[in-house]
Amino acid sequence: MLQEIAEQPAALARTIQSERAKLSRLGAFLKQRDIDLIVLVARGSSDNAALFGRYLLEITTGIPVSLSAPSVHTIYRAKLRLQHALVVGVSQSGEGEDINQVLANARAGGAYTVGITNEPVSAMVNVVDETLLTHGGRERSVAATKTFTGQMLLFYLLAEALAGTKPPWSCDTIPDFAARALEQQPAILELVQRYVFMENCVVVGRGLAYANAYELALKLMETCYVVAERFSSADFLHGPVAMVERHFPVILFAPPGVMLPGVKSLIGRLRELRADSLVITSDLDAAASCARAIIMPKEIDEFGAPIPYIIPGQLFAALLAEAKGLDPDQPRSLSKVTRTL
Amino acid sequence: MLQEIAEQPAALARTIQSERAKLSRLGAFLKQRDIDLIVLVARGSSDNAALFGRYLLEITTGIPVSLSAPSVHTIYRAKLRLQHALVVGVSQSGEGEDINQVLANARAGGAYTVGITNEPVSAMVNVVDETLLTHGGRERSVAATKTFTGQMLLFYLLAEALAGTKPPWSCDTIPDFAARALEQQPAILELVQRYVFMENCVVVGRGLAYANAYELALKLMETCYVVAERFSSADFLHGPVAMVERHFPVILFAPPGVMLPGVKSLIGRLRELRADSLVITSDLDAAASCARAIIMPKEIDEFGAPIPYIIPGQLFAALLAEAKGLDPDQPRSLSKVTRTL
Repeated sequence: MLQEIAEQPAALARTIQSERAKLSRLGAFLKQRDIDLIVLVARGSSDNAALFGRYLLEITTGIPVSLSAPSVHTIYRAKLRLQHALVVGVSQSGEGEDINQVLANARAGGAYTVGITNEPVSAMVNVVDETLLTHGGRERSVAATKTFTGQMLLFYLLAEALAGTKPPWSCDTIPDFAARALEQQPAILELVQRYVFMENCVVVGRGLAYANAYELALKLMETCYVVAERFSSADFLHGPVAMVERHFPVILFAPPGVMLPGVKSLIGRLRELRADSLVITSDLDAAASCARAIIMPKEIDEFGAPIPYIIPGQLFAALLAEAKGLDPDQPRSLSKVTRTL
Repeated sequence: MLQEIAEQPAALARTIQSERAKLSRLGAFLKQRDIDLIVLVARGSSDNAALFGRYLLEITTGIPVSLSAPSVHTIYRAKLRLQHALVVGVSQSGEGEDINQVLANARAGGAYTVGITNEPVSAMVNVVDETLLTHGGRERSVAATKTFTGQMLLFYLLAEALAGTKPPWSCDTIPDFAARALEQQPAILELVQRYVFMENCVVVGRGLAYANAYELALKLMETCYVVAERFSSADFLHGPVAMVERHFPVILFAPPGVMLPGVKSLIGRLRELRADSLVITSDLDAAASCARAIIMPKEIDEFGAPIPYIIPGQLFAALLAEAKGLDPDQPRSLSKVTRTL
């Protein structure tokens, strides 16, 4: 897992280079089709990448996005009206049967379908109109890392292709941002010792960083067996904050941008409750208000943050698992391809 | 909270009687508007009711549903294309500022907007085209119960109004089903003693019962301060199942219907892992395979189950809070109206 985390800057650069031209053709084609809805279909880490895609696509393109409930299609057998929809399936292996079944049904119903996968030879490739590849090389760890950030990157490229105007980010800076994030490894190696006996926690992020909260929580569940909840800072205040007692661990993503004031106000509230807070941020005020902080480079801006900010989270989970004497590459009860319908 | 839980059969009957005619007029009107997307906007328990509404509406009407990310509208200021959308806001108090702002923006952008609330005099009523009321009477407990099931009921009525054909349920049976569910109270009062020292757990449901898992988890977090995760049985197998060790508590909703085989196969897996499982079901096989069971009446069928099946969950949370020496009506750190943007 640590090795695959470290491969991310190179994998991201390969994906930009290999897929950009295809995406730009796809964008021109889709603009003529008058897409009025985007449906994203995925499970596990891929579903967290889709959650990021949801925010990015709605903010950038103005097209409403729905995160699909696969069982509506596969078990309740509903036929949704998707004639003007773009349906995007996301699966590392390309072998998620439920995801592929939703894609096949949507295509048969007139939707344009795209598959995002790391496996150019997979069942998904055969059921979609177009395939977008993460160029991560084989992912051996059960806990997805490089394919997760590769999927996020393809959502950036898709949003660029669908947006009418120049978007507020440049994908070309993201591999460098990811490389900068990897420099946190020695600091995180020290930090995790303090969390060796943590049994549960809450992870908070909002907006473009909301998916990071989901993904770090999933990594902590999968590799460290920590009962990790995930919330947006707004939803957290609608009930779950009642769980927080003195020293309750809360991990927060606080990248720069329009969400930062809200997250900082939650940090203030957590301080009053004497929670044990760990923040991933470049904001020194936010860092000073928390028990612990992972300080990110200042130059990573709002729209560039989602990929580099998950990297310290991946490192935290992998190193905490090792510190707990667990093997993050082979979590108990899991295999690389999960078959569900 | 216990008193408000007990009021549900009467409140549900009042809501059917008071709102059905309005819904049927609304349905006729909306069929002429050619709605191609339904967007649901809510937070907290209301968002869990919306999650139920999502499954019911997609299965029944074939119209795609998107659960809104309010911050896309309120903080990122995106203008989504919602001209042919029905946008439904759900808020017990009708005072959720972010929900109301999304409704106002959507209406200004050409969407038809509906508000579901318990407060006929509230800010929400003034920003929407049509209001649907839960006739619960004032809800005093911070933990929502009767307004939650009232919101679910309005989604049944809305689905009936939008569907082309006769739906596979009859709302008129639901208040009776709810009354039958209340008969579980003495059994649950005994059961909760066993869970007094439970600190974390996972709640599982799928399809039409998925929202029940979210709602029971939220109730456990709010009133019992238990770190309660919530998953569909499919998502649970995509990673989080790694957390399950011997005696790890898992609560499952296993109502009759097409999802039951999948939930039973998860129960088998949990048994191998020696998890401590509690199932809410009318299936005696499922009950026999779990450590503990709450046995529901056989006559509660697949589409009638979602409301009566959450009631033992509400009772479990309220009675467990009391057994832990907590006040379920006044959870720490919470107030009845949460203000977030």
